[in-house]
Amino acid sequence: MEEFQSVSALIESLKKLPGIGRKSAERMAYQILQMKPEKIDQMVTALKNARDNIDICPICGSFRENKNCPICSDMSRDQDTLIVVTSFKDLLAIEKINSYHGLYHVLGGNLSPTKGIGTKDINIEGLFNRVREGNLKEVILATDLTLDGETTALYIAKLLSSYPISVSRLAYGLPMGGQLEYADELTLAKSIEGRNFIKKEL
Amino acid sequence: MEEFQSVSALIESLKKLPGIGRKSAERMAYQILQMKPEKIDQMVTALKNARDNIDICPICGSFRENKNCPICSDMSRDQDTLIVVTSFKDLLAIEKINSYHGLYHVLGGNLSPTKGIGTKDINIEGLFNRVREGNLKEVILATDLTLDGETTALYIAKLLSSYPISVSRLAYGLPMGGQLEYADELTLAKSIEGRNFIKKEL
Repeated sequence: MEEFQSVSALIESLKKLPGIGRKSAERMAYQILQMKPEKIDQMVTALKNARDNIDICPICGSFRENKNCPICSDMSRDQDTLIVVTSFKDLLAIEKINSYHGLYHVLGGNLSPTKGIGTKDINIEGLFNRVREGNLKEVILATDLTLDGETTALYIAKLLSSYPISVSRLAYGLPMGGQLEYADELTLAKSIEGRNFIKKEL
Repeated sequence: MEEFQSVSALIESLKKLPGIGRKSAERMAYQILQMKPEKIDQMVTALKNARDNIDICPICGSFRENKNCPICSDMSRDQDTLIVVTSFKDLLAIEKINSYHGLYHVLGGNLSPTKGIGTKDINIEGLFNRVREGNLKEVILATDLTLDGETTALYIAKLLSSYPISVSRLAYGLPMGGQLEYADELTLAKSIEGRNFIKKEL
């Protein structure tokens, strides 16, 4: 028996998700076929809404919903401190600890000579536009403590050295080689508290 | 920061899939947000087509596409032999070995006193309607070789004993306690070849 065309298409589509191979995609597809049509409709609606309502904030590079960035539009946040992170998931990790109330800048990746990711491929330009506006007093570099994350932090720190702002790096409370996304909340909080100033304006 | 409503809905929807917990659903959702809109559209279309084009064949209980069951409508298949399986995935497993060319009957589950699954909850009635039509010479019971699968096979075998047809059970080439879906192709083929007749009409 040939595989059904509708099912093959669904399996191919599901295989695009992270961590989903052929076998998992098949299991999912047949599970979906056994769902009530209303449940499939809910999934369809959820996907459409995600596609239509979520985009990237042109200021901070994070996701926003219905053109409203919950970070950039929140004037109760400290407007003079900014944390630079690699990804939106890192932003979420920091938001979860509830001890930081400043701004964010999401790079969308780390510089990586080995992977061919250069300065034009991540959102560094946008960061400097924000620095030039002159409202920031401190930029905290919170890229991953991996080789690529360190490279990115050092590169940005060097460029920032000519601006009259403080630049800091997350404290090395995180284990080296670790990824920010998987850090436990306490370690992450400690590493923000104990950040080391690379340059400090008085 | 609150989680975006569109993202929460998507995560909830993805969590309904088999083997997908909170953390995996989150990863998938954020992966989906980073996809090109066309890729999301493909996924939406695939889900809709699966919902609209696939349903259950009223004869054999398997899936069919556009109201056409590829098994029941294929007159080149042996019309006098029928394999009873627990699920559609078991049917697919048998189709893959390419050595069986008869009909199927998908029960949609096994009898299970412990899980409260009784004779009315699986498609046994439909099987007996087909047996009563009188075209079948042999019914091969290919339910899982687990306790529930054996219970189901024995129950059906007992009811079939009053009809003038042969009834067989998959050979015990499969390891006991094993699930048909995960059997390797050779073992599965051997177990069909070496099936043991519970009753044989000459």
